[in-house]
Amino acid sequence: MQFHVLFCLAVMVLAVNANRQPGQFSDDSYSALGNEIPLLGDTSPGSVWPKPQMQTSSPMVYEVAVQKFVFTYASTSHKCDLTEEAFKRYEMLIYNTASQLKLQFRPRAVPSLTTLTVNLMSACEEYPSLHMNESYSLEIGDSALLTAPSVWGVLRGLETFSQLMWQTDTNQVLMNKTSILDFPRYAHRGILLDSSRHYLPMEAILHNLEAMAYNKINVFHWHIVDDQSFPFVSRTYPDLSGKGAYNPSTHIYTPENVAEIIEFGRLRGIRVVPEFDTPGHSQSWGKGQSGLLTPCYSNGKPDGTFGPIDPTVNSTYTFVEGLFTEVKSVFHDQYIHLGGDEVSFNCWKSNPDITKWMALQNITGDYATLESVYIQQILDISASVGYSYIVWQEVIDNGVKVKNDTVVEVWINNKPDEELAKVTAKGYRALLAAPWYLDYISTGEDWQKYYLYEPSNFNGTDAQKQLLMGGEACLWGEYVDGTNVTPRLWPRASAVAERLWSAEDVNDVEEATPRLNQHRCRMIRRGIPAEPLRPGYCTHEWKNI
Amino acid sequence: MQFHVLFCLAVMVLAVNANRQPGQFSDDSYSALGNEIPLLGDTSPGSVWPKPQMQTSSPMVYEVAVQKFVFTYASTSHKCDLTEEAFKRYEMLIYNTASQLKLQFRPRAVPSLTTLTVNLMSACEEYPSLHMNESYSLEIGDSALLTAPSVWGVLRGLETFSQLMWQTDTNQVLMNKTSILDFPRYAHRGILLDSSRHYLPMEAILHNLEAMAYNKINVFHWHIVDDQSFPFVSRTYPDLSGKGAYNPSTHIYTPENVAEIIEFGRLRGIRVVPEFDTPGHSQSWGKGQSGLLTPCYSNGKPDGTFGPIDPTVNSTYTFVEGLFTEVKSVFHDQYIHLGGDEVSFNCWKSNPDITKWMALQNITGDYATLESVYIQQILDISASVGYSYIVWQEVIDNGVKVKNDTVVEVWINNKPDEELAKVTAKGYRALLAAPWYLDYISTGEDWQKYYLYEPSNFNGTDAQKQLLMGGEACLWGEYVDGTNVTPRLWPRASAVAERLWSAEDVNDVEEATPRLNQHRCRMIRRGIPAEPLRPGYCTHEWKNI
Repeated sequence: MQFHVLFCLAVMVLAVNANRQPGQFSDDSYSALGNEIPLLGDTSPGSVWPKPQMQTSSPMVYEVAVQKFVFTYASTSHKCDLTEEAFKRYEMLIYNTASQLKLQFRPRAVPSLTTLTVNLMSACEEYPSLHMNESYSLEIGDSALLTAPSVWGVLRGLETFSQLMWQTDTNQVLMNKTSILDFPRYAHRGILLDSSRHYLPMEAILHNLEAMAYNKINVFHWHIVDDQSFPFVSRTYPDLSGKGAYNPSTHIYTPENVAEIIEFGRLRGIRVVPEFDTPGHSQSWGKGQSGLLTPCYSNGKPDGTFGPIDPTVNSTYTFVEGLFTEVKSVFHDQYIHLGGDEVSFNCWKSNPDITKWMALQNITGDYATLESVYIQQILDISASVGYSYIVWQEVIDNGVKVKNDTVVEVWINNKPDEELAKVTAKGYRALLAAPWYLDYISTGEDWQKYYLYEPSNFNGTDAQKQLLMGGEACLWGEYVDGTNVTPRLWPRASAVAERLWSAEDVNDVEEATPRLNQHRCRMIRRGIPAEPLRPGYCTHEWKNI
Repeated sequence: MQFHVLFCLAVMVLAVNANRQPGQFSDDSYSALGNEIPLLGDTSPGSVWPKPQMQTSSPMVYEVAVQKFVFTYASTSHKCDLTEEAFKRYEMLIYNTASQLKLQFRPRAVPSLTTLTVNLMSACEEYPSLHMNESYSLEIGDSALLTAPSVWGVLRGLETFSQLMWQTDTNQVLMNKTSILDFPRYAHRGILLDSSRHYLPMEAILHNLEAMAYNKINVFHWHIVDDQSFPFVSRTYPDLSGKGAYNPSTHIYTPENVAEIIEFGRLRGIRVVPEFDTPGHSQSWGKGQSGLLTPCYSNGKPDGTFGPIDPTVNSTYTFVEGLFTEVKSVFHDQYIHLGGDEVSFNCWKSNPDITKWMALQNITGDYATLESVYIQQILDISASVGYSYIVWQEVIDNGVKVKNDTVVEVWINNKPDEELAKVTAKGYRALLAAPWYLDYISTGEDWQKYYLYEPSNFNGTDAQKQLLMGGEACLWGEYVDGTNVTPRLWPRASAVAERLWSAEDVNDVEEATPRLNQHRCRMIRRGIPAEPLRPGYCTHEWKNI
């Protein structure tokens, strides 16, 4: 599926001696003493994160005419609204880079770049998908050309192009002569944010979508509801947020909000995959939908608490079908995440109606099968409304019979490699999340641990390896809201982004460290408060609060 | 020293049933259904953090006339610039609270409060100090009166007053009839920020000073320089920042910056105590002051690296005297922190000149004594320029002879209670930092651990206990800069703030949790992005980036 033209330029990667203290960083501003221009190398200015599949660079530089830089179509190019919106964004980004700077004196003259010509080789597409083609090639020389077989590759290539710019310490904006051929290693590179444990204001979600685009992340896995709150406003069942949101007028996502998020993601080639996790993790659902959750019993009486969704009554399935029909009409992606994790059987066990029903079905005492009965129907409903689906690993672990095209997300951090081997041996496609639970925090450089986890390191045939579609960095919301979500996510999630985009052998922490630091400082320049890796500094520090 | 008039009002603390899910929070906005007004209780709206020493409240409420609320002096009151600046700040804060809200309909009429009368009982003072009196009393009734023996108590009382306000869910701003008598348990309640591992922009420091005032923290321990960088601009030795700062023009604190920080703190009753840590932790000093650091030897030759400050040459002491004379003229506090921690002897051992000097002094091989020789002289210099001083515990652990009025800060988290017993048994005053190293992070509610550490729990006489002056929460800068310093500090440091201000028996995590959450939400309303404690929400979420 990927774009495999090979460039055969000589590799001229030269080491830079930036004369820094060990363990300390500066970022993208380099001393250009006299006529010396820093040579490109793995820690060179204008390096790209995540690292392209193939890149050759030369010490020859061009000055980027930041005040008047424009993107244009090649004469043979297809045209597309997505591309044109991206042109505007990146022209603004390049211009803003410049407007913050004052060129202190004019260094030696170098050829100027005023245009990037874009050749989109196929017709415009509307929504990003699992199967989108994100490959592109980029040639920076006396002219600059970005070629991509699809609009998604144009988006990725524009991001790379913007990262190639760097500033001298007199604020001249330069770009080295460069050839890049690039494509992602994995098709699904996601970030999970959780808007139930804490409500995430629209501003926080949109800013992080922007940051995802800066890291070539292509899936926003939106864990939108859970036990704690139900902020999704359903037109069909307005009581779900009316009674289940933290606040039914301020802590919600209206249909307009959801549409804005999807459109914001679409423009950046980011899929928005919602998760409606059942039958557990659904306490907040029960507030606005009576009869949905299982009443728990103590001492032979309902004790006022509730358990998972009641799988034994028809009304449950009528409700889910109604909800999912609406969800499918609101979220454009082919996939829905159906959850299915961490279902406790205690409440089901306490409830005499459940017990009676199970006896009638001849499954007395077999709660795993009870869960399977539920999941099976939910999968069928999802398929009937037109969805493909992703589930957490327990669904498979518990032996639920699922459709062949089910995607299984591995999250339990106990030998996830064995789980991947098991899931793919059964022929299911898989996503890996277990090593990348960013809500777990610890002192120090945990990004290295995320960076070094090799997803393909599991026992299996080549065919099994092909079933691993990618992975996700998960920032669950127990301890995260608008106050800290962005610095907690970045640049830690950037480590995962490179692991999933770049080649398998791009796994040298020492090489990656200064490049990641440069990328963090670049994010700061662009308005994303990415936290520091270790002692050091950025030329332009974060000064907002 | 404290203000001990006892109020003998009946305690009418009544529990509030706020009908919340376990483990979840709302904050300061309460449903006032019909004529019911929420009753004050430990989790009531308008509760105060840190908790006052004595507080009685009644269900009777007053409406705060937020649009026109003013502070006035009692006829007998002394006047003071600090007080008047604080009046302006808190009038603005009260007004801003209101301007964000729209009163949705007028609930039942209650008496209105338009003024707080302030009675400052003694003459104005200029700078906060270790011995300042921070006690105050506050009476909210048909009239409202704040009485304090010193201006510092007025500042603390105004903060408390501002926290007593709360909003109904129709946005009426109320305050319960209340009597408070309050004073701090410990005189030194500090926060350490580190501007060397990462430069902290002025905006970040000033915002956090504001947050300190909201938590009645009264010392900003400014770990201003260290190995990594020297951002303090010295007029006497400009090369220190000129060569030792990350960037000599953007990553520095000019004399004007320092003066602004001190003044900002002064207006809020916060001392600014700078730390110039030697003889270790001084790599950055060496860049701008040649001959200061010890050259390290390998294979009989200087290897180009440097160790701690060279204690064997006179030029060292001339330099330090010059620097400290300037520091004393810039920082107004009586105290300087001299560091003295983590001195490695390896480089001293490698250097033949040091070896020769030690032989001449008859201390061959005794590097602890070499360190003592240095520290002794630094202490003498500090005293000669007029400073009292604080040192890290190693100075005492290593047997350095120090003056009787030395303050010893206990930081090593290995039986800090035994260290406190030892230090105070020798008659030194002590500060406790060990349990409160906030740069160590972990998943979950670590604030509880900080909250529950009882500083006075060490073996010692009452006289020894009296020598414990307080403590500090330390947020070292390895992984912290402007992007994340504020949410990482708050509300975790608030737990320490209450431990050090409130009575010893205020140590019930269950009682504190909703009150701390309310305080976090209050900080967010005031522009401080304090991170969440656990799942829940604030009425007004943080929406900035």
